[in-house]
Amino acid sequence: MKERPEEGLIGIFDSGFGGLNILRGIIKELPEYGYVYLGDTARVPYGSRSKEVVYEFTRQAVSFLFKKNCEIIIIACNTASSDALRKLQREYLPENHPSKKILGVLIPASEEAVRKTKNKKIGVIATEGTVLSESFPRELLKLCPEAMIYQKACPLLVPIVESGEHNSKIADLAIGKYLKELRKKKIDTLILGCTHYGILENKIRKIVGKNVKVISENKAVPKKLRTYFERHKEIENRLGKNEIRRFYSTDLTEKFQILGKKFFGKSIKVERVELV
Amino acid sequence: MKERPEEGLIGIFDSGFGGLNILRGIIKELPEYGYVYLGDTARVPYGSRSKEVVYEFTRQAVSFLFKKNCEIIIIACNTASSDALRKLQREYLPENHPSKKILGVLIPASEEAVRKTKNKKIGVIATEGTVLSESFPRELLKLCPEAMIYQKACPLLVPIVESGEHNSKIADLAIGKYLKELRKKKIDTLILGCTHYGILENKIRKIVGKNVKVISENKAVPKKLRTYFERHKEIENRLGKNEIRRFYSTDLTEKFQILGKKFFGKSIKVERVELV
Repeated sequence: MKERPEEGLIGIFDSGFGGLNILRGIIKELPEYGYVYLGDTARVPYGSRSKEVVYEFTRQAVSFLFKKNCEIIIIACNTASSDALRKLQREYLPENHPSKKILGVLIPASEEAVRKTKNKKIGVIATEGTVLSESFPRELLKLCPEAMIYQKACPLLVPIVESGEHNSKIADLAIGKYLKELRKKKIDTLILGCTHYGILENKIRKIVGKNVKVISENKAVPKKLRTYFERHKEIENRLGKNEIRRFYSTDLTEKFQILGKKFFGKSIKVERVELV
Repeated sequence: MKERPEEGLIGIFDSGFGGLNILRGIIKELPEYGYVYLGDTARVPYGSRSKEVVYEFTRQAVSFLFKKNCEIIIIACNTASSDALRKLQREYLPENHPSKKILGVLIPASEEAVRKTKNKKIGVIATEGTVLSESFPRELLKLCPEAMIYQKACPLLVPIVESGEHNSKIADLAIGKYLKELRKKKIDTLILGCTHYGILENKIRKIVGKNVKVISENKAVPKKLRTYFERHKEIENRLGKNEIRRFYSTDLTEKFQILGKKFFGKSIKVERVELV
């Protein structure tokens, strides 16, 4: 039997900082592995860009992470998962790249939502790009063809989080406005379809009320990854149990350091890289 | 005497769409020349990025516009004017590039503010990048050393405009919050130090009241450009009187077309380009 390699890593890619939240959840669930995080902070946010541009940026990110010894990459950005994942998975087919695997965040969240809903009315809030891609309705209807899916693009929520206004009245007003339509549809389950929205989770829960179950990817993705590794030993075997934590970003601003400290309890060292 | 060339153009660069507003003002003032507009819509907004990244993106844009026969470039983006203009002006010195000129938008706005203020208390609202660069205080104090300058970064205003919420309560709340401190300082003049803020001008005027003069670059820049050409005939002589209008962007989304139609009264043809 082949020995477990020292440096087989798990890559986490996000357009910005939001994916740190998912990384934290994954590390809590699976601390023994090594992780490389890449945030494309020089070009964040992806949510309003065209499908072509999101694909091109994501392709560059995936290529970078594979070069950094990643055996498996999780695209933590919903817009990138929606606009680029399927094309990239076709380009990295197992027959050509047997040791390279790319996963998104939409399926774990969709599975969880379908498991939780009772009246089969599921709401999704996300960026414009994710909503336009129709990726959530596609995944949800595959799992539950009789479901009714209601989507709402919330273009201001990412800037609200990024500018530190997540506890302000502005956040209340924006969330209230965006959720108004979905509440009228009597949804009983709401997917937070953008990594940034995790930071607004408590506010959103308050506004939708107790009768609506809120699905957060920060919780859904780590659990699914554990079961994925149990089912795919051939991939798990290629991962080093080295507890490596590496952080890359395409722009260096203070925010990364501040969030890193907040999420991981200690300073993180971030290296700037250029994606081409 | 050398003949006027057919294709000497004026370049307008902005991180996104906001500069279309300035271009419209310039064309109204100087319709006879030819214009090339470039919006870096694949990487907008610049306001929260590091100085290094803003410089690099702006350098790529300037190089592109010079290759497109521009004799003079106006950097309509305040963040780029703040973080990159002086360095680029040094790189394109007249002795090496006699026919290439780069101008920003901060000086016209600053001159107008100094002309208008009576109590010498001037407020500036802008992106984080522009505020951190201290470019407005530097220019204003050069023109009026005894002035008191009060700056306020307004990171949510660009996303509010970009997401079409400029007429909403969210806009009122955000503007009110950002302007609160400046109003307490008893400013009598306020510079809108970001091209996007032109769209919020009426709201801002209402909130600051009649006693505060609001300086908008959309008006200050075109006037200054006319006098600049009067003083610099050697540059004006290199411009074709061809009425060319060309539009480039790094991402193609519907917004450009919609804004173009709104600003120019007819559809504009936009070509996608990659900056490197």
